[in-house]
Amino acid sequence: MTKLNHHFTKLSEDPFFSIIERRVSAFREQNPSLPLFDLATSTATRPLAPCIAAALENAVREISHAALFRGDYATLRNAIVKDEYAKLGIQEDEIFISESAKNDVSHIGEIFALENRIAVPDPADPVYVDSNVIAGRTRLSLKTGGFGGVVYLPCTAANQFIPSLPNRPCDLIYLSSPNPITGIAIPKASLEEWVAYAKKNDAILIFDGSYSAYVRSPDCPSSIYEIAGAKEVAIEIRSLAKTIGCMEIQVAYTVIPHALKIAHGYQSISLHSLWKRRQEVKASTVSYPMQKAAAAFYTESGREEVKQILDSYLWQAASLRKNLTDLGWTVFGGIDAPYLWLKTPSALSSWEFFELLLTKGQILTLPGLGFGTGGEGYVRLSTFGSTATMAGSLKRFQEVRSLC
Amino acid sequence: MTKLNHHFTKLSEDPFFSIIERRVSAFREQNPSLPLFDLATSTATRPLAPCIAAALENAVREISHAALFRGDYATLRNAIVKDEYAKLGIQEDEIFISESAKNDVSHIGEIFALENRIAVPDPADPVYVDSNVIAGRTRLSLKTGGFGGVVYLPCTAANQFIPSLPNRPCDLIYLSSPNPITGIAIPKASLEEWVAYAKKNDAILIFDGSYSAYVRSPDCPSSIYEIAGAKEVAIEIRSLAKTIGCMEIQVAYTVIPHALKIAHGYQSISLHSLWKRRQEVKASTVSYPMQKAAAAFYTESGREEVKQILDSYLWQAASLRKNLTDLGWTVFGGIDAPYLWLKTPSALSSWEFFELLLTKGQILTLPGLGFGTGGEGYVRLSTFGSTATMAGSLKRFQEVRSLC
Repeated sequence: MTKLNHHFTKLSEDPFFSIIERRVSAFREQNPSLPLFDLATSTATRPLAPCIAAALENAVREISHAALFRGDYATLRNAIVKDEYAKLGIQEDEIFISESAKNDVSHIGEIFALENRIAVPDPADPVYVDSNVIAGRTRLSLKTGGFGGVVYLPCTAANQFIPSLPNRPCDLIYLSSPNPITGIAIPKASLEEWVAYAKKNDAILIFDGSYSAYVRSPDCPSSIYEIAGAKEVAIEIRSLAKTIGCMEIQVAYTVIPHALKIAHGYQSISLHSLWKRRQEVKASTVSYPMQKAAAAFYTESGREEVKQILDSYLWQAASLRKNLTDLGWTVFGGIDAPYLWLKTPSALSSWEFFELLLTKGQILTLPGLGFGTGGEGYVRLSTFGSTATMAGSLKRFQEVRSLC
Repeated sequence: MTKLNHHFTKLSEDPFFSIIERRVSAFREQNPSLPLFDLATSTATRPLAPCIAAALENAVREISHAALFRGDYATLRNAIVKDEYAKLGIQEDEIFISESAKNDVSHIGEIFALENRIAVPDPADPVYVDSNVIAGRTRLSLKTGGFGGVVYLPCTAANQFIPSLPNRPCDLIYLSSPNPITGIAIPKASLEEWVAYAKKNDAILIFDGSYSAYVRSPDCPSSIYEIAGAKEVAIEIRSLAKTIGCMEIQVAYTVIPHALKIAHGYQSISLHSLWKRRQEVKASTVSYPMQKAAAAFYTESGREEVKQILDSYLWQAASLRKNLTDLGWTVFGGIDAPYLWLKTPSALSSWEFFELLLTKGQILTLPGLGFGTGGEGYVRLSTFGSTATMAGSLKRFQEVRSLC
């Protein structure tokens, strides 16, 4: 008799994003003529950078019209190493190209035993915990929120939303910089502490740099390998879709240095060899046109065009942050990511404030509680929308302010 | 202290395809001026069908040039249902679009408990067993080949290479039709037995129809849902990359009917809901240009153009089969798949024959043993190559024949 993976029953039956979607549908049905200002989206909305578009179109023509097409799949990995990693001592074969950072983040746990204790920032992208719930690396969900067996690393105003070292041993530590929930990047000094912690405790850091291309603060490294010794304790995952600002270019990569080894009986086993094996068994080669499009980022014009696009989102973030602050709100983030972390006023819960913004302001946000108990008391704003969305929502924020 | 997933150590340290790659590199180094006739590739080599190429180019222009691009991601799933599944009673939301059938085949196990006993055809695509080894659903590798705890379903000349019902209870049964190793599809009568077996034993069939578009025998269903009652016991996985004959169009799908439920305590849980949850947590939306390209297959010209391409590979298979048979070899498959299953002569092992064909004939094949102990005594030939490769290899087969 077939038995199901009972760990699924630990997950909430009504996923966060389904609740949001239903709420939005209901709102639109009740208010068909009202505009809705979408500050919830994590999808970049500007057109693709011209030279990346051109590279994609060229590659599509290559695969379409060449008889016996044989792609050169080395270009992208080559460019990534040359441009980003050679200076950090990372070699080409330490980089694994994949189709999505979300996939890599959710699959990386497969190379580790189920007994490992995970630590995650709180709030964080739900994929860290949920993928481990499915794998069976957590206990039951707790009435107070979260799951037993997981160490939550609170990110609060008190610690500037930078996860502090845990007070009990952890084995696999997820860090994201910038954290796409709070919009805040981790400074070098803090990353140094984490690398030292991992060395001391034989722990592994899973460094999610999906939004690393948005980091602007000079004291925040965009790669974990800027920290001395990180190659022996850290895996880094990056999204090229997010780096170039187009979710349709589905390319990402994971870096696992050869120096990253863990003890297994009397042996010391390289995690690189395990992930390589995992990819051979389960993964596919990323499509040639996607790889060629992503590779075009690593040219002078690619860098320049993309920087303008990313800067425009960051400019919107800075501008919204300033305006909201001037209106009297308390806002964090938005410097190293196109995301703001807005404190709810008058002790409203994150869901109450979400509802208020939606019904009174037609502003769509995401309630912080959806990203962990540490998200209570906040809503998350995205500045990936159009200039019109930004301008329209700001007006509404002014009106809602008078209600709080 | 971080512990690794020790199940990886059960896998062979030297994967099959790495051995082949090394062997080919060595051959090329030693014989730089000799041609090599590649009958090992599983990558289609003809140019992309024109109307699919046009759809891809159009979609690329859409995402490149439209400000605030919002893709319509419903087209493909819509077309799949209308064209393939409405007649079989499958609804749109029972289909999950993904980026690769290999991924789906290797991830589907996540919704099932580790205690389930798997059954796999022997020979088969190694992904079935290897993904379960990594998950921990098998015991150690056996000296005689294969892994403990797995039920192997021999596919031999005695049973026309159609897996027979096992003599002990199994929970998760992988079936592929056509089997891309032997090139042989499963007739309706046999699939009816499997559906009846699954019903009787509360087992689940994982029906890998990656190459279903190549099935031509009228008594071999291309979908498992052509069998009455299959909706209550079977999951179907298909590759659109293989359906349209271009590995660069990375689109696939998995069908999980709502009627597919399994007991869990006092409840009956829908596998559809589990997989939906799994995809929400871990998967990404497939890129719009890829989806639009695949959708162009479901048009009159798309069907027609692709049929011509697929038929050309099948024609090469039929032709090579006939010619090899005329030369006195024993050959199977090649009717419902672009793959032939060639018996080794003179009691040679599959690796010996592989070596003989490579060194004396410059023909690259794949030794059957790489696909399971049931593959011993055979090599696999692919007819995805060019006409020149087919003609050239046939000449060499004639020469090698005189040596056997």
